Amino acid sequence: MAILNRADAAPENASSPVAAAVTPLLIGPPPLDADKFRRQGRQVVDFIADYYACIDDYPVRPDVAPGFLTGKLPETAPYTVEPDALTAALRDVRELILPGITHWQSPRHFAHFSATASNVGALGEALAAGLNINPFTWEASPAATELEVVVTDWLGKALHLPEKLLFAGGGGGTLLGTSCEAMLCTIVAARDRKLAEIGEERMGDLVVYCSDQTHFSFEKAARIAGICRGNYREIPTCRESGFALTAKALQAAVSADEAAGRVPLFLCATVGTTPTSAVDPLRELCAAVEGRDVWVHVDAAYAGAACVCPEFRHNIAGAEAVDSFSTNPHKWLLANMDCCALWVRQPTALVAALGTDGDVILKDAVVRSSQTGVVDYKDWQVALSRRFRALKLWLVLRCHGIDGLRAVVRSHVCMATAFECMVRADARFEVPVPRQFALVCFRLRATAALPGEDKLPCGAVDDVTANNELNRRLLEAVNATGRVYMSSAVVGGMYVLRCAVGNSLTEERHVREAWNVVQKQAAVVLAIKNKTDNQVPKN
Amino acid sequence: MAILNRADAAPENASSPVAAAVTPLLIGPPPLDADKFRRQGRQVVDFIADYYACIDDYPVRPDVAPGFLTGKLPETAPYTVEPDALTAALRDVRELILPGITHWQSPRHFAHFSATASNVGALGEALAAGLNINPFTWEASPAATELEVVVTDWLGKALHLPEKLLFAGGGGGTLLGTSCEAMLCTIVAARDRKLAEIGEERMGDLVVYCSDQTHFSFEKAARIAGICRGNYREIPTCRESGFALTAKALQAAVSADEAAGRVPLFLCATVGTTPTSAVDPLRELCAAVEGRDVWVHVDAAYAGAACVCPEFRHNIAGAEAVDSFSTNPHKWLLANMDCCALWVRQPTALVAALGTDGDVILKDAVVRSSQTGVVDYKDWQVALSRRFRALKLWLVLRCHGIDGLRAVVRSHVCMATAFECMVRADARFEVPVPRQFALVCFRLRATAALPGEDKLPCGAVDDVTANNELNRRLLEAVNATGRVYMSSAVVGGMYVLRCAVGNSLTEERHVREAWNVVQKQAAVVLAIKNKTDNQVPKN
Repeated sequence: MAILNRADAAPENASSPVAAAVTPLLIGPPPLDADKFRRQGRQVVDFIADYYACIDDYPVRPDVAPGFLTGKLPETAPYTVEPDALTAALRDVRELILPGITHWQSPRHFAHFSATASNVGALGEALAAGLNINPFTWEASPAATELEVVVTDWLGKALHLPEKLLFAGGGGGTLLGTSCEAMLCTIVAARDRKLAEIGEERMGDLVVYCSDQTHFSFEKAARIAGICRGNYREIPTCRESGFALTAKALQAAVSADEAAGRVPLFLCATVGTTPTSAVDPLRELCAAVEGRDVWVHVDAAYAGAACVCPEFRHNIAGAEAVDSFSTNPHKWLLANMDCCALWVRQPTALVAALGTDGDVILKDAVVRSSQTGVVDYKDWQVALSRRFRALKLWLVLRCHGIDGLRAVVRSHVCMATAFECMVRADARFEVPVPRQFALVCFRLRATAALPGEDKLPCGAVDDVTANNELNRRLLEAVNATGRVYMSSAVVGGMYVLRCAVGNSLTEERHVREAWNVVQKQAAVVLAIKNKTDNQVPKN
Repeated sequence: MAILNRADAAPENASSPVAAAVTPLLIGPPPLDADKFRRQGRQVVDFIADYYACIDDYPVRPDVAPGFLTGKLPETAPYTVEPDALTAALRDVRELILPGITHWQSPRHFAHFSATASNVGALGEALAAGLNINPFTWEASPAATELEVVVTDWLGKALHLPEKLLFAGGGGGTLLGTSCEAMLCTIVAARDRKLAEIGEERMGDLVVYCSDQTHFSFEKAARIAGICRGNYREIPTCRESGFALTAKALQAAVSADEAAGRVPLFLCATVGTTPTSAVDPLRELCAAVEGRDVWVHVDAAYAGAACVCPEFRHNIAGAEAVDSFSTNPHKWLLANMDCCALWVRQPTALVAALGTDGDVILKDAVVRSSQTGVVDYKDWQVALSRRFRALKLWLVLRCHGIDGLRAVVRSHVCMATAFECMVRADARFEVPVPRQFALVCFRLRATAALPGEDKLPCGAVDDVTANNELNRRLLEAVNATGRVYMSSAVVGGMYVLRCAVGNSLTEERHVREAWNVVQKQAAVVLAIKNKTDNQVPKN
């Protein structure tokens, strides 16, 4: 094909059939090129490797002000580019962008939940991006669909999920982007199944249930699905039950709705809540709604991964009775962002709600699929288009094996346990809820600010508020060092710091350093508080 | 950190604080490692480069039967893995998986719409996967959020979108995965804005509009958002108006709903429909619903990209009056899967519907964001978690420039125009709807089967059905060669073949070859048809 420079182009003729047919075809530098890819790919691989090698040098959370980057970039994209634009672009990434990102892969990132990365997780994404296929139907890429069927069964078996959630047992799994998507798809499946039975006009009567510890994604998913705002039941939990949802409270809420003529639709139970990694008791909760046709979904976004180890499997006891289960291999199973595995007991319910058959484009392929019984994953998710995520997850399982994943989970739990022990050994601190998995919630005691002096009556409002504020300041001080990044939660009125161990580069020394930073900053904020308190006349 | 083999682990003690604190920490081979990444990264880069170099050797669509891969893979994931597992895994990809994928990047893939790939698009995904950050709030990665603000404005300006859709003009853009997500988010924003005004109990009265050419994703998005199935208006189009939605038909539908007490909510107009790339007239459609508070969304998933070239911008004339606009840079702008850019005129409407403020985990960060006015992109989308897609799109714009993107679009349009000319030059064929952008819809004429003989009365039902079947057979025959992959659509009762030019590796010779394959297979199916027809006694 003839290659012309831009100056040779005749844009005004480009859409004229006659002119185009006789004009040599126009093309710039070829955007896809095997040899150039080999060279450019190495540049990018080296860039990433260099980043991993020096990631510990960056403050975990950057100390930047809003607008810091916007002001450094031009107002429009370039029209023409320099010959070796990638080299220049990578320099921009190093000089402008890296100093402004929060380094989620830093060994000293203990905030939120981890996004446990791996070499093959990143390279699996790269490989999928290189092949760049769009396997929305079996026919649009047979191997991609079949690999997804195989790998979701592999993962389900590795987690010891009930067989009825796997293809091998009449259910089946798919790979989505996030837990919220999994919640949305299953709510819609449950909603449409129910409305088909009771009539679309009763949409406003449908009620969904969760606890006050459930991730806010569930409320969002329910709202997106059109569940009335007033029909979202966030059932209170308490410290005594470890912030888990109790069957008794659920049953009371469901009964009250039924008595009022409303229709209980959906329960989202969590295994490993975001604030404290609490575990809702699946067996008891399923029993509480048994016979009521309530769809029970399990959000095990973070902690589901732990079930690769036999010693954690009791956390999903009773899952035989649930309708769907999801966990995020991008959180704790080395499958870089993004990857959420969703299994459902009745794929037909999902397909009935999300399937499309009136399409004039894919009709032939869809007819063939229904004849041969293959899966068309477009009918299991919100969108039509999808990435080849199965390749990444398969690479991770293929290259690390179940033993490798167990080692990762156990090493993180061990490090979190070590951190918990260090906290407990310091009398100024408390661990108000037991460590679960690799998450430690901790805080300065109310009495810490007044060592050896009189203390306020325990539980007084002023005391609680002041102590929450003290811990908020502690977290701010810890994060401001740039040496550690932790997060917080408010549970049962208590502000707690969260230390979530889960990064692939984190070693025991990082956990010890993190604790040293916390202790040092605690001394500082306590000293400031004591000084301020002493300036206030005592009653 | 001490590294132990699996045999040394004591799993039953792993969750016991005391044991763990004294037990050396357990870890397998480190999953993330800079030096190993450098070596493994090169393997994967070479694998992809080799794939591009020999992609032309594969049949575009594989000739495989359902279950072909499932049967070749073990029933469970491995427990332990070989020392160089990646090499073995890549061999599996080459030997087991590549022969079973549909090669979307093949220069002879003309089906669906393209997924125009580039070196930097794939490497941008790789880089984002390597950094593996999760920029859900500004604070969770400031540079990622700011780059998304910058790059969506860059792209919006490159497409000459109305300023009010850009941050620079009070609106703003975000990067999602797919068009269906963009539709869902905007329907929910429109729905909640309307229900806040008229009351949640009127949910069942909301009506959404599109044409019978609109992508089925819109119906799906509306259903997910809880719009009643009966309130989805698919307004008929016809060949005479080029399968575009007319203002008159829209106005009639809206008025009828209003007269019946229903509430017009949302119009999805399409620039570049999937079947024929028809363009709905934005100015006229906006005028038709003016003053009725109908949210007008433009789905320009495929053809929006063409607006990088001045000569195609008339297709979005009137976009000043729309509420939102989306296009997929993963379709035609070199940004490998997945990347959908959505711009909205009123980000506050999106945030009101999709924002969350009751969260106990991100509260501090969200409070700070609202004080400083930065964007928290979690409130612009379905999910909380998100990838660093802005990095990829920025790399593409930075390394190709607007001129580079124009060259890509123009070269594809030129090649499609050349294909159209070849079809028109063969009297057996017709191009029943004019080529738009780089999509040619064509088919064998009803008369083609009977050269020089009597023909059935034009327009007779039998004739239409028989000719559709003839063209369906032609497409099957073409695709069965493995040398070309095209798709089909049914528009105005006509079955047409779709030839969408848009792959980065496609050159003029591939388009000519594709036409040769079509001509050859047409001769075959016509010969079979004539033979069959001659065996049937004539009436």
